[in-house]
Amino acid sequence: MEDITKILFGLFLMFAAAKGMGELFERVKQPAVVGEILAGILLGPFVFNLVEPSHFYNVLAEIGVIILLFTVGLQTGVDELLLVGKTSLIVAILGVVFPFIFGYLYAQIISHKTVEAMFVGTAMVATSVGITARVLADLRILDAKVSKVILGAAVFDDIIGLIVLAIVTGLGKGAISYLKIGLVVFEAVAFVLFLIFIGKRVVPFVAPGLGTFKTRNAPFSLAILLCLGLSLVASYIDLAAIVGAFMAGMVLSGLNIEFRLSLKAESLYDFLVPFFFVVMGMHVDLSVFTQANIIGAALLLTLFAILGKLLGCGLGALSLGMGQASIVGVGMVPRGEVGMIIASIGLSMGAIGADLYSVVIFMVVATTILTPPVLRRMILKSDALKRVGEEMAEKAGAPE
Amino acid sequence: MEDITKILFGLFLMFAAAKGMGELFERVKQPAVVGEILAGILLGPFVFNLVEPSHFYNVLAEIGVIILLFTVGLQTGVDELLLVGKTSLIVAILGVVFPFIFGYLYAQIISHKTVEAMFVGTAMVATSVGITARVLADLRILDAKVSKVILGAAVFDDIIGLIVLAIVTGLGKGAISYLKIGLVVFEAVAFVLFLIFIGKRVVPFVAPGLGTFKTRNAPFSLAILLCLGLSLVASYIDLAAIVGAFMAGMVLSGLNIEFRLSLKAESLYDFLVPFFFVVMGMHVDLSVFTQANIIGAALLLTLFAILGKLLGCGLGALSLGMGQASIVGVGMVPRGEVGMIIASIGLSMGAIGADLYSVVIFMVVATTILTPPVLRRMILKSDALKRVGEEMAEKAGAPE
Repeated sequence: MEDITKILFGLFLMFAAAKGMGELFERVKQPAVVGEILAGILLGPFVFNLVEPSHFYNVLAEIGVIILLFTVGLQTGVDELLLVGKTSLIVAILGVVFPFIFGYLYAQIISHKTVEAMFVGTAMVATSVGITARVLADLRILDAKVSKVILGAAVFDDIIGLIVLAIVTGLGKGAISYLKIGLVVFEAVAFVLFLIFIGKRVVPFVAPGLGTFKTRNAPFSLAILLCLGLSLVASYIDLAAIVGAFMAGMVLSGLNIEFRLSLKAESLYDFLVPFFFVVMGMHVDLSVFTQANIIGAALLLTLFAILGKLLGCGLGALSLGMGQASIVGVGMVPRGEVGMIIASIGLSMGAIGADLYSVVIFMVVATTILTPPVLRRMILKSDALKRVGEEMAEKAGAPE
Repeated sequence: MEDITKILFGLFLMFAAAKGMGELFERVKQPAVVGEILAGILLGPFVFNLVEPSHFYNVLAEIGVIILLFTVGLQTGVDELLLVGKTSLIVAILGVVFPFIFGYLYAQIISHKTVEAMFVGTAMVATSVGITARVLADLRILDAKVSKVILGAAVFDDIIGLIVLAIVTGLGKGAISYLKIGLVVFEAVAFVLFLIFIGKRVVPFVAPGLGTFKTRNAPFSLAILLCLGLSLVASYIDLAAIVGAFMAGMVLSGLNIEFRLSLKAESLYDFLVPFFFVVMGMHVDLSVFTQANIIGAALLLTLFAILGKLLGCGLGALSLGMGQASIVGVGMVPRGEVGMIIASIGLSMGAIGADLYSVVIFMVVATTILTPPVLRRMILKSDALKRVGEEMAEKAGAPE
């Protein structure tokens, strides 16, 4: 019973701090999500040390980001995503190539070994779509074309990142299994294509049957079940669970209005999503920022990380025009837990040293916290996007 | 990453089994909650052993039952509860006295030691309000007077159970600290009275301010925050966390319609509550049922457990008339995790033996699974209650 008291204490503080800081940030016209991450930093071991990171909070955070991407998926139609598919794919590919080269160059400049350079390059590749998706959702512009391009690119990005990771860990171990890499690629591509097919053909066909269940709110429960199931499959084939959650939302997007799925998911979102960002903040290792000798290197890598996505993804999205392309570029800048995970794999394999690890962590934190305010400002300056947001806000307000 | 795959696997199976069995049970006109418990038994270690019980699932289940009681509290006004307060108190007191005496007598009949008899008596005392609240909520009769009496009695029951436990563990250790018992009683009573005061005086006063927040869905987030906070306080003063959650809901019940709190809490309910019942099922130790030599004793204790609450609580609620009084009596029959906890405290203190422990577990499981179908049938046979349910179902259906 003491254990549950302790966990409730943590949950209460985390939720209170997230909502309090979020409110504060919104009042000074900054994104709530940055407030939530800062709340986590404040509660975490490096500042007030009020909440001890725990396995339970980590898993709850993972469920939070699954719900976030599921909700985002619900508002992203399969057809609309296919429509921007080519642009997204180019954005994703260039958004992998440029940062990888930049990361590789950086490590060469600082004169690290080649294998270290490969790992830094890989850690530069993975976009943390949670941050950007949250900003897009808060500004209610998930319906805009630029949002679809970013979200589509994030899915491709995850698949490509997975391939790069398979190759680099192969290199790190001194041997590449082409069979394994082929299998990884095949599984990921088959998963996404299969779901797009299901979304277009099967879902509209079974939809009328959803009303025949006796369970209260059966369509919503089935939607959650699909979300959990596809997150599981994605996680099982070593894709991020959130890719599965996003695909589940997308598959069901055609039923969103009929069964009010987004609206029903909103309370789950409000309850669970803040834990993801608070926990992300709690894991930020602030001691990295006190090592004066690495600050210079860290700032340089951060600059490279920003330029890599900005140039790569921006170029990939040039067909949308300069203004929108730069929004896509900025939207792809944040690196998240995937960058950290790759860095820690490298560390545990002995492929990169502790100093380089700290530099990568610095880059991840900096890109994550810097992006939302910039992205928010750019979106609000675009008249077309602002209009989409206002229309959606009105629509969302209507059934309230 | 493998860890999250495993947890997602468990969550998916648990949710699928809960909803599947729930649907099946509703189709044969049985309560969904029994289906969910059976789903847990099937998935658990004693049947198919598909999901390993884990710390994460246990805490998630606890959050589930917190949400359940919070939702129930939202539909229970402070004034209405005070109106039935006297009846509830009598129901609670007689519902403690009768089962305690019956449990004590049972242990004396089977010729156990006095300290064993005391523990069995205590394990007989605590009502598992989750089961009954779920049946009442599913049939949408939380608004009926009989529901208020049961819920009020459950709160008192928890306080009295706490006092009895403090006394009996004191006896088990060979020394009673009157100071400690006094403190326990004072904290619990002060907590409940303070919240009733807050609910009546403070909440209506601060309510207009709730609209001034910038955060999306701020009133709902604040409601969740209060729920977490009061669950924490209740857990901290050794009351069950769910008493705090129920009180939080009750305190906010006056704002329920204005801010659509119940409606917004519904998806949290649909997602989280099933995990509570599935996990409850997973913890059922089926091996108890295979020990032929204790089945007779177990059936006798179960009979005493049912009669104790039926007579005690029924007598306490006689002012409602025989029909309603018997519904109150049946509604208070299920024992839950509290009974199990008391038995395991007794076991770990060496105050009761393994055979008696098994008998108590049998009684808890049997009363938990037998009650919902009987309660459901009695409610549906009562024309007045059936009408309340139909009216509420219509109201709930309207905003859909």
